Amino acid sequence: MKLPERTIERLSTYRRTLLNCLDAGKNYIYSHELANLHSITAVQVRRDLMLIGFSSQTKKGYDVKELIDVIGKILDSSSALNVAVLGMGNLGRAVTTYFNGKRSKLKIAATFDVDSNKVDRVISGVNCYHIRDFKTIVQRENITIAIITSPPDTAKQLAEILEGAGIRGVLNFTTIPINISSNVYLEEFDMITSIEKVAYFVKEMNGGSLEK
Amino acid sequence: MKLPERTIERLSTYRRTLLNCLDAGKNYIYSHELANLHSITAVQVRRDLMLIGFSSQTKKGYDVKELIDVIGKILDSSSALNVAVLGMGNLGRAVTTYFNGKRSKLKIAATFDVDSNKVDRVISGVNCYHIRDFKTIVQRENITIAIITSPPDTAKQLAEILEGAGIRGVLNFTTIPINISSNVYLEEFDMITSIEKVAYFVKEMNGGSLEK
Repeated sequence: MKLPERTIERLSTYRRTLLNCLDAGKNYIYSHELANLHSITAVQVRRDLMLIGFSSQTKKGYDVKELIDVIGKILDSSSALNVAVLGMGNLGRAVTTYFNGKRSKLKIAATFDVDSNKVDRVISGVNCYHIRDFKTIVQRENITIAIITSPPDTAKQLAEILEGAGIRGVLNFTTIPINISSNVYLEEFDMITSIEKVAYFVKEMNGGSLEK
Repeated sequence: MKLPERTIERLSTYRRTLLNCLDAGKNYIYSHELANLHSITAVQVRRDLMLIGFSSQTKKGYDVKELIDVIGKILDSSSALNVAVLGMGNLGRAVTTYFNGKRSKLKIAATFDVDSNKVDRVISGVNCYHIRDFKTIVQRENITIAIITSPPDTAKQLAEILEGAGIRGVLNFTTIPINISSNVYLEEFDMITSIEKVAYFVKEMNGGSLEK
């Protein structure tokens, strides 16, 4: 069963929140609490969890640990997925630092750049290689996913390199959309979009209405 | 008229693509071309543009410059909006470098941190202040939007500071969802979610089906 993209996004954010709950010593949570934390309705939460076959809300609410496990069975692969980061500027370093250690099933196994000050060093805890060695390293490290954090004008060129190396999923953080075979799952995220959205709704709120 | 969040996101990404087209010397674009570049249908593109009252597709397609202007009238404020970045680690620096110069209507006017190596310096082209001076600087610089790029455990505390200073819109890049008054527009973005989504669909593709 393939779930809708929006459901996957919400499941991922639920898990993030549930892990924070667990850290804070909270072992049960009601659907309306989980909903409030994400500014959505309890109905939406219950619908998403029903979709993955989870409905065991007790009087105390959902069992946090159990729900984390159930979501993990949906989202995670049975074996770890190895990820490459392309471009070790500020964003590449932020992404690498951010991910490693956070999810055992996703591991940044290698990073790439062309700058001789970065290549052949350990940056943010991960080896940095020259991009010309991409295919070799991808095969050796069994990497299936790539995150592009390099300058925008490199994105198109990189798309070809990624495809040639057999990468299966790409997260593009540059401002230029890339073209890639439909056999590769592509997610594009431009930070400009999220801030323009905030700016638009701030402008609309100033125009009178205050609800979101 | 307030447009749906998803429409705003798409308008922002259309504009980004249109600006790239213009840079590449392309002055006209068909709805199906714009659609292809975003992996959506031409019907969706035409529906979004109809929503903002734009329907003048000629035989050559849409006039790129005209469409950029029309989208700008919807998304942009008449005067520039000033933005603050909180937390000048790798992510804060990436965000600041990334934004400045890209959109004249959105300007990163100040950055904040608590680290004495960063405070009172110019980082990524913008003055960095101590967080205790947040309210003063926000008022002086007429800042209405804040981007949180600090470590997750600071997010909750920052929410109070932001509200106290009269911030109207917040983009939260940390892994912890924040609670803030409903008078403030809040957008949360966790990089983990986008990569988990890629990982899920890669896993599903490996399971047999190859379409997205």
